[in-house]
Amino acid sequence: MEQRLRVVMAQLNIRVGDVYGNVEKVIEAAHKARDDLNAQVIVFPELTLCGYPPEDLLLRSSMQSRIEKALQQVKNAVKGIVAVIGFPWVEDGARYNSCAVISDGEELARYNKQRLPNYRVFDEKRYFESGSGPCVVELFGVPVGITICEDIWFSEPLKQACDAGAQIMLTLNASPFHRGKQAEREKLLAKRASECSIPMIYVNQVGGQDELVFDGNSFVVDGGGKVTQRAPAFEEGLFVTEFEIKEGALVPVPAQTTELLSLEASVYQALVAGVKDYVQRNGFKGVVLGLSGGIDSALVLAVAVDALGAENVEAVMMPYHYTAQMSQDDAKEEADILGVKYSVLPIAPMVEAFLSTLAPMFEGLGKDTTEENLQARCRGTMLMAISNKKRYLVLTTGNKSEMAVGYATLYGDMAGGYDVLKDVPKTLVFRLCEYRNTLGYVIPQRVIDRPPSAELAPDQKDEDSLPPYPVLDEILRLYIEQDLSADAITEKGFDKEVVRKVIRLVDLNEYKRRQAAVGPRVTERGFGRDRRYPITSGWSIGE
Amino acid sequence: MEQRLRVVMAQLNIRVGDVYGNVEKVIEAAHKARDDLNAQVIVFPELTLCGYPPEDLLLRSSMQSRIEKALQQVKNAVKGIVAVIGFPWVEDGARYNSCAVISDGEELARYNKQRLPNYRVFDEKRYFESGSGPCVVELFGVPVGITICEDIWFSEPLKQACDAGAQIMLTLNASPFHRGKQAEREKLLAKRASECSIPMIYVNQVGGQDELVFDGNSFVVDGGGKVTQRAPAFEEGLFVTEFEIKEGALVPVPAQTTELLSLEASVYQALVAGVKDYVQRNGFKGVVLGLSGGIDSALVLAVAVDALGAENVEAVMMPYHYTAQMSQDDAKEEADILGVKYSVLPIAPMVEAFLSTLAPMFEGLGKDTTEENLQARCRGTMLMAISNKKRYLVLTTGNKSEMAVGYATLYGDMAGGYDVLKDVPKTLVFRLCEYRNTLGYVIPQRVIDRPPSAELAPDQKDEDSLPPYPVLDEILRLYIEQDLSADAITEKGFDKEVVRKVIRLVDLNEYKRRQAAVGPRVTERGFGRDRRYPITSGWSIGE
Repeated sequence: MEQRLRVVMAQLNIRVGDVYGNVEKVIEAAHKARDDLNAQVIVFPELTLCGYPPEDLLLRSSMQSRIEKALQQVKNAVKGIVAVIGFPWVEDGARYNSCAVISDGEELARYNKQRLPNYRVFDEKRYFESGSGPCVVELFGVPVGITICEDIWFSEPLKQACDAGAQIMLTLNASPFHRGKQAEREKLLAKRASECSIPMIYVNQVGGQDELVFDGNSFVVDGGGKVTQRAPAFEEGLFVTEFEIKEGALVPVPAQTTELLSLEASVYQALVAGVKDYVQRNGFKGVVLGLSGGIDSALVLAVAVDALGAENVEAVMMPYHYTAQMSQDDAKEEADILGVKYSVLPIAPMVEAFLSTLAPMFEGLGKDTTEENLQARCRGTMLMAISNKKRYLVLTTGNKSEMAVGYATLYGDMAGGYDVLKDVPKTLVFRLCEYRNTLGYVIPQRVIDRPPSAELAPDQKDEDSLPPYPVLDEILRLYIEQDLSADAITEKGFDKEVVRKVIRLVDLNEYKRRQAAVGPRVTERGFGRDRRYPITSGWSIGE
Repeated sequence: MEQRLRVVMAQLNIRVGDVYGNVEKVIEAAHKARDDLNAQVIVFPELTLCGYPPEDLLLRSSMQSRIEKALQQVKNAVKGIVAVIGFPWVEDGARYNSCAVISDGEELARYNKQRLPNYRVFDEKRYFESGSGPCVVELFGVPVGITICEDIWFSEPLKQACDAGAQIMLTLNASPFHRGKQAEREKLLAKRASECSIPMIYVNQVGGQDELVFDGNSFVVDGGGKVTQRAPAFEEGLFVTEFEIKEGALVPVPAQTTELLSLEASVYQALVAGVKDYVQRNGFKGVVLGLSGGIDSALVLAVAVDALGAENVEAVMMPYHYTAQMSQDDAKEEADILGVKYSVLPIAPMVEAFLSTLAPMFEGLGKDTTEENLQARCRGTMLMAISNKKRYLVLTTGNKSEMAVGYATLYGDMAGGYDVLKDVPKTLVFRLCEYRNTLGYVIPQRVIDRPPSAELAPDQKDEDSLPPYPVLDEILRLYIEQDLSADAITEKGFDKEVVRKVIRLVDLNEYKRRQAAVGPRVTERGFGRDRRYPITSGWSIGE
């Protein structure tokens, strides 16, 4: 056994589906790890060659042949360093979530993931069969065990590898972010490492992929479960970790341990990463959004500018009769502070044209939300026209509380390609604004302090028709993230009728969410693939 | 053993989530089967108590307690007949797709589904653990075996039951429709029954549930695999099947064998069932749709009237400069023939208002699809206003070919709650129109014969920018339903560039489909839960 083992954690931003592009990135990283970082081993994330999650691209007939070609390229090009790399693999009619250990053109070992997550956002049993048995391979005299992501959430796979002699564990991951996730991971690895007294290297990818954001945060724990190194969150890079042999055991050399981000910082960075990758990877030059003078669009504007640069962001204020002058002033101020292009396009001519065309049909019927929705839809149509003409993506600004209770207009303020705050409850929106202002004042304080209003009717306030946001958000958290019933939530001290009203709204508005834009998941349970409810449902509220 | 066994196949239309409502329906059916039909056994579909597919309602904390209550109600109320009934069941932390045999307040047997589908539209491994071992229970002297749906697509579960002595098989199903599905089922059961020389009773539910339509078609095969009885498709009812003992074996008494529907008839009825249940179960008074004078909206109008009655359907023609007089005449004729309320609301005032407001911003930029989309979005906004004011659901009219290549405007003609033709390729739209006219002339022949046009620009024809529909639909079928690559499709004799263009459009337009209305699945692979593609994808077209 040599005296030192130098491993690179390849915390890469992988592109789903782009097998040929990903393999080039892999080869470049391996060469850099070998030549510049003097590493012996480089470990890539789960399913690196196809990206994660590949979804039904896995079912395409040519996925396997592309992967085979890519793997051959790795074998041909990666010499002088051992590469541990994940990819899907079909054998005897079964598809596995696999990884291979490649050294100088040879495949030294192969491992198939044993535990397949099939809950929340994960659908791995749709695609993969479970592997059986551990993988331990000797590298530079050290018996190295390998697991993939979900494996380590159970005791057995690690225990198998240790029983087979592993003295260090590599774990390849594509582990999506949610608030507090890194603390969970580190707690888990501390437990696992201690169970077997073995050091572990946890490699995760970074970047946004539709609903998911990957935060990186690759890290190392020693045999006692202590974190000895942590790579930065949301930052692509090759991070070296080194081990030395002390009294016959592998001991990680303590290295840069980036501080854990605060909740606000981690969520904010997740939103920025989500916007950046969604916009750029879908080929848009920039984004356009409607500024209302309210807090949600102010936050989205800040995120967009941090993600894409002010020169790629356009803001449009679309006032109507109910838009306060204060809202127009604040919207302009937001745009001015951040230096984005700002336009004012009043919607009255369109709204009036619709209303007068519809007047004969609506005769005798009173005013209701129809007229409010019409305003929102004129704004949505305007933004989409700008989007079409300039090839800018429309960012929508609905937060999770609004998406939950349907406090948004389909094809109106919901019109757009990416909903930045889709999984951010309103109370967290406030905290994120305060946080962003600590980095530099960009959101006028008045925008944060004003009572929220959709301004679709005279003197309208959100809290006229909804409970105060701290109450609403807690009921929503218990109902959506914890699946509690109305009765169970009421027992926690909330008003029974308020709870039932909120839950009824959540259930009723499934049809709106089904047509909503995707947006980055930042809580333990977002909307989208994470929460699959029928639209047509006879479920009754209560126990 | 008695000389006869009388079994009722309860081909019911079950409401997802409505446990308390479903159990009442079950009890009523059991009493009717006992009292009016003189049956000894009644067999209900898979997961009857919660409906299928319950999706994440299964994760709600109170699902199990509701099911327990419902099952107790069945035990208390159903006497004098044996009920075989499906429901989800949690035991020792594991959830099963179960069924119980209930007789005079006692549970005689329990079976847990062994094979869990987790492909296409199915997510059963998200919720259920697999059962182990067969269930054979003696009823009236006959050893009866039980399986649930997916079980019989494999040899093993039936073989287990036969090895355990079963002389007849009951199979409980929630098997969704697609074109040709009943022939597949019958072929399969013929094979299974022959393998074990055992008669089988196949019970399926009916009705629409979001993307899925269940066609019923419950049927019976004898021990040689011959169909001896077939209940009608898409019709709720209790269907008696009787067996007699001949030379020690159970032989089904031949009974009403409803003819298999033609492809056109079955798809048309699936659309009608889908519309009816979606509209009524979501509490809408009726529907409104835009009539363009084209074939898609003409077909949707006919389906809507057949599903809901003319008095619950409103049609709106929204002409613009490019709308031919012929289109307006045809739209009016369609509405007149079917007797629905018809209005004409020109969109020019709104389109002009948008264009003049946007003119300064668009100065120097040429005309493009922006102006076309604007027309579609003014129409969508108009229909949504009518929907809001009158509480009518908007039906959209985009067919599968259009949804595939994105030949539709988000928030424009895609605005609405249910897309009737979402899974109907354009070539099949033509056939369905011809079929519907054989039942009574409702779609003017000229509408069927005219070359399709979106009429969003002067003299526009679909085939100016798309290949002829027979070519397009075949390429789409090979790509979407069969997952073939561009090269593999080209090898079948299609033009390489055309194939690539079509596939590129399909891939690019995933973002539109993600925000599309749900609609009834009628092919082997629809959009929606059936086909889960990333929006952000680097997959390249080719091999």
